[in-house]
This record gives sequence, C-alpha cells and structure tokens, in this order.
Amino acid sequence: MSRDAKGPFAEVSTGFLEDFHHSAQFGATAAQGVDRQAGTPEHGAVRDWFEGRAKDFGFTVRTDQIGNIFALKEWVEGAPFVLVGSHLDSQPLGGRFDGTYGVIAALHAAHIVDEQVNSGTLVPQFNIAVVDWFNEEGARFAPSIMGSSVFTGRLPLETALKTTDPGGVTVAEALEETGRLGDKLDLVASAHAEIHIEQGRRLERAGLSIAAVDRSWYTQKLLVRVVGEQSHTGATIMADRRDALLGASQAVIAAEEVVRDFEPERLITSVGQFDVTPNSPIVVPSRVDLVVDLRADQQEDVEAARSKLLEKFQSIATARNLTITTEDFDVRKIQEFPRESVELVEKAARDEGHESVALATMAGHDSVPLNLVVPSVMMFIPSVDGISHCEREFTTDEDMLTGLKVLCNVVSRLVAGEFQGVEPGDER
Amino acid sequence: MSRDAKGPFAEVSTGFLEDFHHSAQFGATAAQGVDRQAGTPEHGAVRDWFEGRAKDFGFTVRTDQIGNIFALKEWVEGAPFVLVGSHLDSQPLGGRFDGTYGVIAALHAAHIVDEQVNSGTLVPQFNIAVVDWFNEEGARFAPSIMGSSVFTGRLPLETALKTTDPGGVTVAEALEETGRLGDKLDLVASAHAEIHIEQGRRLERAGLSIAAVDRSWYTQKLLVRVVGEQSHTGATIMADRRDALLGASQAVIAAEEVVRDFEPERLITSVGQFDVTPNSPIVVPSRVDLVVDLRADQQEDVEAARSKLLEKFQSIATARNLTITTEDFDVRKIQEFPRESVELVEKAARDEGHESVALATMAGHDSVPLNLVVPSVMMFIPSVDGISHCEREFTTDEDMLTGLKVLCNVVSRLVAGEFQGVEPGDER
Repeated sequence: MSRDAKGPFAEVSTGFLEDFHHSAQFGATAAQGVDRQAGTPEHGAVRDWFEGRAKDFGFTVRTDQIGNIFALKEWVEGAPFVLVGSHLDSQPLGGRFDGTYGVIAALHAAHIVDEQVNSGTLVPQFNIAVVDWFNEEGARFAPSIMGSSVFTGRLPLETALKTTDPGGVTVAEALEETGRLGDKLDLVASAHAEIHIEQGRRLERAGLSIAAVDRSWYTQKLLVRVVGEQSHTGATIMADRRDALLGASQAVIAAEEVVRDFEPERLITSVGQFDVTPNSPIVVPSRVDLVVDLRADQQEDVEAARSKLLEKFQSIATARNLTITTEDFDVRKIQEFPRESVELVEKAARDEGHESVALATMAGHDSVPLNLVVPSVMMFIPSVDGISHCEREFTTDEDMLTGLKVLCNVVSRLVAGEFQGVEPGDER
Repeated sequence: MSRDAKGPFAEVSTGFLEDFHHSAQFGATAAQGVDRQAGTPEHGAVRDWFEGRAKDFGFTVRTDQIGNIFALKEWVEGAPFVLVGSHLDSQPLGGRFDGTYGVIAALHAAHIVDEQVNSGTLVPQFNIAVVDWFNEEGARFAPSIMGSSVFTGRLPLETALKTTDPGGVTVAEALEETGRLGDKLDLVASAHAEIHIEQGRRLERAGLSIAAVDRSWYTQKLLVRVVGEQSHTGATIMADRRDALLGASQAVIAAEEVVRDFEPERLITSVGQFDVTPNSPIVVPSRVDLVVDLRADQQEDVEAARSKLLEKFQSIATARNLTITTEDFDVRKIQEFPRESVELVEKAARDEGHESVALATMAGHDSVPLNLVVPSVMMFIPSVDGISHCEREFTTDEDMLTGLKVLCNVVSRLVAGEFQGVEPGDER
C-alpha cells in the first residue's frame, strides 16, 4: 500500500482545500494562526460562514441550547443520525488546523456521501448530521469539551450557560451575542465520527498518514496554592523572607522533575496557569496559584506522579516556611473506544490504499464524552513536528486529503449501517 | 543612657498616639493593615483628615501640582522653610506604620515647636512645613517616590501626571478625583527631615531605638523576558517543548542563588512581578515577563551580581532552547547624607537620653531625592521582626514616642538655624 494508491474516494479534493484554507481567514493572526476563542465575534463569523457552506450543499442547519451547530440531511425519515464533526473554536493564538480541519472535512465527507445516496450508489440506513461542537478548547470558558459534554448529559446545560469568562461574560451572553443560543434539539444518534490532527509526532515518526484512536489517556489537574508572607523587596533581608514565588518556582520545576521517574513519554506534566499576588515589583510575593496538568496512558502512573509531587511540595513548604495546599480537579478516566471502531478505520484506510496504526489520544476531544453514549470512531492525521496549540501548527494538504478520503469511507460505511450493534465505549 | 531617661521633649506624647492609631482606620484591612494606594478614595480620605488636623493646630494647608500636601507655619516672613514629612499612601495590603508614622510625627513635632516659638523659648530663623509627599510607594502608579521626585525636579511634572495605573487612570485624574490637583507652589526649603520605620531588623538586633541614615543602597531593576513557544499541554511530549515558565522559574531561583556568592546580608535580590502568557491551564506558556530587584551597599556588588545573573540566564536559555532578554531600569546610585545630618541626629538622640547608630537605607524614601537638593536628615525607629510592606508590620508605642521626641529635638534645632551652611548630599 503506497501513499498515492487509488481507492473509492480518490477524487474527493474538489472544493475541500479551498474551503479549509478560506476558514483560516476568520480570526487570522499575523503569524498564520487563528484566535477564535469560543463565543467571540471571530468565532461567530467562522460559524456563520460554515452555516452558509452547509446550506450551499443543501443541508438544514439547526443550533441547540448550548450552541452546538448541526447541519442535517434526513434521507430516511425518523432514522437515527450518524454524527460527524469537531470544533471551530481555537486557543488564543492557536493553530488553524486544530478542530477546524475536522469540521470542514466532515462537511465535505457528508456532501460526498449525499451525492452517493442521491445517485443511488449508496443505500442509507441512517441520516447524517455534520456537527460543530461548541467550546472544545475551554480557553475562554472552562471546562473544555463543553458543547459535547452537555449534548451527552455529562455537564448540566444550566451550569454550562452560567459559566463566565475572566471578564464576567456568561456563556449564555456570548452565545446570544453571536446568534447561537438555539433550541432544544431531540436527535437520536447511531454513531459519531471525528477526524483531527494528532498534535503529537507519533504518526510522523512512523511515516503513516492515518491513526485510529483506541483509547484516551488518564488525565487530571491539580490546583496548587503556595502561601508565604508579603514583605518589602528593598528592606527585608533574605533570611527573613517567606517568598511564595520562590516556592512556586520550585514547584514548577518539581512538576517537570517527576517525569524522570518514568520511562520516556510515559507521563507528561505541565504548568500552564500561574498567578502571583500582589505582583508588584517591590513586594515579595505572598501567594501564587498555579495549575499542574498530569497525563499518562496508565492511571497508576498519574497517581504515582501525583503522590511524588505532593511529597516534593511538602519538602519545599517546610524548607521555605510556606504553606502549599492542593486540590484535585478535572479528573478524566481512561476511555476505550469500541474494538469495532479501530477495525473500521483500519478497513477504510486499507480501502483507500493506506496503512493505519492504533494510538491513544493524550489530549481531550469531543469524541471522548460522545464515545460513552454513542459508539464513536476517532481518527488522527499527522502534525508536522508534533506542534499544536500555537500558530506554527501545520499539516500538509496531502495528509488532509488522505484523511478526508478515509473519513468519507468511514462515513459511507456508518450511513450504510455497517456499525450496527456496536456498543458505546467504556470508561475505566 | 537608658531608654526611659528624660530629655527636653519628654512630655510630647499628648495627642500623638491618639492621632496615629486613628489614622489606621482609613483603608483598614481585616488583618490590621491598610490598603491606601495613591489617589484612591481611601488615600483621599486619610489626606483630608490630615488636612483637618493640621488646620486644628493652626497650620495653613496648600497642595502643589503633583498632589504633595504642605501644612505651613510662617513665623519669619520670607524666610526659607524647614520641611518635615513622609507619605500617607501604602502598598496593597500594606502596614499602618510605613510612611504614616512619619507624617503624623512630623505634624506633632511641628506643633510642639510652634508652641515653643509662641511661648518665646525658641527663636526661629526659618519657617516650617509639614509635608505629605504624594505616591511614595509606586504600587499603583510607577515609579515610586513620585511626589518628592517632581518637587526636586528629578521627574518632570507632565510625565508624572500622565502616568497611568493598570486600569488606564492617569495620576492627574486620580488627583482630581481626590481633590488634590493643586497649584504651583514656590517654596524655598532650608532643610528636610524625615522619620520612618526601619523595615529591617538591625535596630532591633542592636537593642537601639534610633538610627541616623548616612547613605542609601545602590539599587537597580532588571526587566527579564523569557520567550519559548506555545504548545498543547496534553499532546506535546516533554522533549518537544520550549516552556517559558520552566525557564522563568529557573531564573527566579537563579536570582536567589546569586546572593550566595556574597557575604550574608551584603546583597539582596527579589522577583516581585511575574506575568505568564497566555496563562491558560492547557497551554504550555510561550512567554514570561518578570522584574528582578537587586540591592547592595556597594555598587560593585550589584554589578557583579547582575553579570553573574546574566550568565545564568544564558545557560538556562541555551539548555531549554529559549530566548532570555534583559533591560536595566530604575538604577539608583548610592547617596550620602551630609555628615552634619548624622551628627545632628546623634546629638538630638543623646539629648533625649538615647544612643543612636548610623545605618544605610536599603529601601528608597522621599528623603533620598530631597537630599540631593536640600540638606536632609533621615531617622529610623525599629520594626518588630523587620517585617514591612505587609499587614503584620509593627512598631511599639514606646519606640514611636522615642522617635517623636528625637524628631522634635532635630526640628527645633533646624528651625533655630543650627544646620546653616550644610550642603546637600552627594550621589556616587
């Protein structure tokens, strides 16, 4: 199987690349990234454009109560829908591929499958809905994966709508402002499919263009508060200080050090958020609040790292006469995608002349909550150098087209009913 | 000489303690500190109260163009004024002694000397002005020591008035709002005196109640920018990251480590301000801006520490594939107070039954710029445990009263003309 082998969906490129590259104009940044945080005018604009393109292809567009957009085609009255989608929101100064690739690929795949249905070459058992899930990134409104979590009943609608951004604007207000506070939508789904950039470099290393996601990593966050005592930077001798920033800096370094207790790439840790109080140039800081992010393929690795880290924090606190307190949050268990889902991707990729590999997803995606209520298929295409959540994020046109072909193949099989009887994935 | 010896100003306590403790009600915080940042309503309120007390004592009150308040008594028409003062503004969650003690002690000292003049026991050569200098702390509007720097011509008035706080409010607007945007004031000064809490523990260790400040430390700040690359905390393996927060955390620790190359207490360093970009829990930080504060009794020590630190920053940058750039600012040279100034304090203290010691000031004070244009006298009283710029800052009533007596003695000598012919201090 070579990369340029011809398969059933070899001629799918028409229009897709044009639409994809056009989407990068919405919220474009100087360095070729995008800034389209959930519910901002830039996010609103790309979503309006998406709705227009879906209507051009003859889809009916509806928005639900948490602002998820569904582009529907109902071939079989009353039958469940195959959902295919991802998200159009981004991180601040994020990349133009993350999420957006999956939504535009889904729209084109659904359009191609629609043409098959209309020409009589495919007999549908189910209907189709292309979905743009609201606020996957969680950069402006936490938590992330908000729209899909409300859709699957894992996050109460009212809680989500009341969530505020740092300026006090609620999700409900941001949705209203961008014209996306929709109506209750009763839609029965038979399956969910998502294609996304990998955001790592495992596919690139393996020299492959397609991965089937077989499970998600175990992840958790730790809210850490370091408390010392405010004093004068000019008059307080070093020995008399209880400097919260020095303790917090050691905590950041400890969070990196703990990784060395594990085999390479088995565990990843980060500190992305770090707030200093009072943050004045001539005051020794009294407090730092920071968030540690811990992720591993195995729950016991995260738990072992967390314990080790809490020990290190206590040593820092004792040595510097500080108090360090921690609170666990956003704990996400490992989820297995159905075995049939991985097999379906392998089959579809082979059909299109490509070899695939099964990978775990280290990051969260809309497919993760969906997988617990509806059997889900998730695919990755390569990220150059594994770079993501930044303007330099890149994936080649060739890899995007390969992914689109495999997605078309998967979606046509799902619509034809091949996935029937498959159970949703498990959480463990 | 014992602490309870009687001197000429042994009976000065009437009213002072009552006024001092009353002042702590303005901007009072839950933990017995004050939050009276420059130009806020709380600062405005304490200043209005101060004006009222000065008028009760028969002073004429005027405010200049940068909001310095002068309470004047003109005994000798056309003669220069002895300035006695400090500042009523505070750090956020600051202590109730810092600055405020000096202003209220100045008012009471001037009132007592006025009574001596009125009773004929003191023949004045000069007039007196009690001063509340605007924005000594610089917590809301940088730089610090603003009002006294404008008064002495070291900072242009227009520059100061245009300075904004983090919310975009200008100094001019904050002064207007609190009724302190005053008029041009042509006032010739013969001397300046200030009494302040030490904010360190050298007096406490020595078991003394009074210090004469003989010089200020050499100080400078270093603006440091650490730049890496934004990436996904969930999907980017550790080896692929260029994490600006890890580099910045090492920079904070390096700024502490550099102190160990010097004898204890010869150099102090701090990082008080530290801002992370984009500061999102699931994004590896791309940038950190931080401010290092370096202070020592000797210029060469600050310069040696700065060079060492820049080397350490380059090692960090190289090891982590980051860029670290630095910019020097707020460089303040060593200033010598006049020899006669130290002798005057020693004499006044002895008169009141107290031994004094000469100390350098590690922190900046209004007396530092004033000393360059008018011969200045600066005194310290003890700070319990050396704690300052925090709510736990404390000085005993007994030490405050001792300071007041010595200040009365100093001011009466200055008014009587004893300091004539003394030149302002030097900068080196």
